[in-house]
Amino acid sequence: MTVAHPGLTVWFTGLSGSGKSTLSLAVSDQLAASGYRVQLLDGDEVRLFLSKGLGFSKEDRDENIRRIGYVAELLTRNGVITLVSAISPYRSARDAVRIRIPNFLEVFVNAPIEECERRDVKGLYKRARAGEIKTFTGISDPYEQPLHPELECRTDLESVPESVQRVIDAILSQIMPK
Amino acid sequence: MTVAHPGLTVWFTGLSGSGKSTLSLAVSDQLAASGYRVQLLDGDEVRLFLSKGLGFSKEDRDENIRRIGYVAELLTRNGVITLVSAISPYRSARDAVRIRIPNFLEVFVNAPIEECERRDVKGLYKRARAGEIKTFTGISDPYEQPLHPELECRTDLESVPESVQRVIDAILSQIMPK
Repeated sequence: MTVAHPGLTVWFTGLSGSGKSTLSLAVSDQLAASGYRVQLLDGDEVRLFLSKGLGFSKEDRDENIRRIGYVAELLTRNGVITLVSAISPYRSARDAVRIRIPNFLEVFVNAPIEECERRDVKGLYKRARAGEIKTFTGISDPYEQPLHPELECRTDLESVPESVQRVIDAILSQIMPK
Repeated sequence: MTVAHPGLTVWFTGLSGSGKSTLSLAVSDQLAASGYRVQLLDGDEVRLFLSKGLGFSKEDRDENIRRIGYVAELLTRNGVITLVSAISPYRSARDAVRIRIPNFLEVFVNAPIEECERRDVKGLYKRARAGEIKTFTGISDPYEQPLHPELECRTDLESVPESVQRVIDAILSQIMPK
């Protein structure tokens, strides 16, 4: 049973290890189980498909985000709830995507970098500290926090189910008729 | 009023000037006017968004088609009738896309190259003959015709409305319950 609803892009931004993948996957599963039309675009996966050859300079990161934004826009305009999980460290690149998409919800997945580094789910912080990754967001490359995100999830202070519920509430309040 | 239907990718392949854009645009307009969820992906436009930096070698053309195919797959899996208009000269690249997409309809937009060159809508054949474009499909670069397309439109022998109707009939017979 599919629910009829307009499209929406939910953009999860935050440091590596902040909880973007965990949150976006849980939100996706819960919405899909309730019959919503939902598509998760994971930054790492999309990069493989759309951005072969791009690196991690500001220019290449921005181009990667622009491409993800284009796909999110197409899906959103066709009535899909599109969840993007991508570090997307530059404010200007996120704002450029926002402008193009009719229905946009920015979720700042926020945990202190010390906490992200302590989690170090993928072992990337360790490699960054060892100098094996030269441009690592938060360590040797900038992360520009959102100034006015629609939602902020402090994943060091609230549980995953609490964050998931707040994101879902925000989504439903945007797409459901008042 | 939106019609409920599964997704489908309709892939228009053919030489420059064969009529892909004309056909796909007319099909898109007609389906949208009838309430179908439809998205047109024009090869030239998509290239700007997804394939900045890619050229026209076989490798780059294949990578471009792979990216368009990825976007078409996402849209199709989310219930959108996705019309792709792209020369897509290599059979193997088209077949690789076909394998990934659950519901796929290849339309060979076919006119003899002499006729395409006579039309020369964008003035590209003239430039190719003058040597200004080095790798031009059909002149100095290969075009591999589909061996078993679901549909072939001989745009030199049938009118645009005739071709459009045949494509729409093929689409509806694929997505409508038997």
